[in-house]
Amino acid sequence: MQLHGDVGTEPQTPGGPRVPKRVDQDARRRALAEAVFAVVGRRGIEGAGLRDVAAEAGVSMGSVQHWFRTKDEMLLFALRHMRARVLARLQAALEGLENPTRRRTIAAGLGVMLPVDPPGREEAWVNIAFFSAAAANPAYAELLREGYSHLLGVSRASLRAAAEAGELAPGVDPVAEATALFFLVQGLVGPVLVGVLDAGEARDVVEHQLDRLFR
Amino acid sequence: MQLHGDVGTEPQTPGGPRVPKRVDQDARRRALAEAVFAVVGRRGIEGAGLRDVAAEAGVSMGSVQHWFRTKDEMLLFALRHMRARVLARLQAALEGLENPTRRRTIAAGLGVMLPVDPPGREEAWVNIAFFSAAAANPAYAELLREGYSHLLGVSRASLRAAAEAGELAPGVDPVAEATALFFLVQGLVGPVLVGVLDAGEARDVVEHQLDRLFR
Repeated sequence: MQLHGDVGTEPQTPGGPRVPKRVDQDARRRALAEAVFAVVGRRGIEGAGLRDVAAEAGVSMGSVQHWFRTKDEMLLFALRHMRARVLARLQAALEGLENPTRRRTIAAGLGVMLPVDPPGREEAWVNIAFFSAAAANPAYAELLREGYSHLLGVSRASLRAAAEAGELAPGVDPVAEATALFFLVQGLVGPVLVGVLDAGEARDVVEHQLDRLFR
Repeated sequence: MQLHGDVGTEPQTPGGPRVPKRVDQDARRRALAEAVFAVVGRRGIEGAGLRDVAAEAGVSMGSVQHWFRTKDEMLLFALRHMRARVLARLQAALEGLENPTRRRTIAAGLGVMLPVDPPGREEAWVNIAFFSAAAANPAYAELLREGYSHLLGVSRASLRAAAEAGELAPGVDPVAEATALFFLVQGLVGPVLVGVLDAGEARDVVEHQLDRLFR
């Protein structure tokens, strides 16, 4: 499962140093994206200038500018990288399931979106930072819309498959309930981050709905 | 119903001009808070310095500094004022109900939290901006936690009252379902803002749950 195939536009530095392998280039940009997360997590988008990220990554300002011409370009790449990270955690969570029933697969998928461990919390804070910046930046809003739409589609397909397999309780509308379940999980993210409820309570809220939906 | 009684700390300007009536002071500070919303809505917290807000409000920098010593003090006041505004819209929505059944009252209360009109969208963007800033500012996180906890309590009390009046469908757990309903609405806010679904679709998602919960 892949949310976005591309990893950002190539940096336009005709006079810059040549890096022999594409894989190295990607690894270096990803390392910078991780530095962006660390800075954004501590100080928000506001504090994530090219200079701050260079300091966090322990590289020169020129080195960051080799990969990203502008703060905006860097942040868009970081947003795409964050999604790749979430999907990698999702894949790992699904592969770790001993008895991957449809219900457990759905619960694991939803669980990955909850900020219940340090990587999940970091990703959630970064996502909120981008959301905030989307008020003024249509490119962020478009990426966020694409991401939500994609995951909403996955959520609906999963519950439809469960319905077709006869696993849902009688009278459950799989599309309407998948939609509600997906947005419920989105709505738990911020409140868990600020401590309205803890990880276990958030999972219980989701499990209560799954108990109701599944036979 | 009141979320926060205080409207921010008094500005500490012993040498500043005296304003005769408290009501004038509050009105002026509220006008500045509205200017904060306009600036935050366009450019985020990042763009909402004292100087920017002064320009938006059409007053001098010194005038803003008379009321707020720091950007942070101004933003905290604006956050509290935003809540007062949401509650005022809630009150108006409830008073506008022709036949205020419990279900319609709950639907109206949840509807006010959805960004389905210009004031609601402005408040939602401002709330996300504060959320983003809460990553680095515990005072914002604390205010957000308080706000969510309060509204979650109201949501639970409303559905419990409906249960006691025999209005809920058999087998519905009012506390668990009020919790899910509240966070579902929170989870719709961001996606409606970026256009994953429109106002009508968001209301339909909520109505589908109310149809299930009520007899």
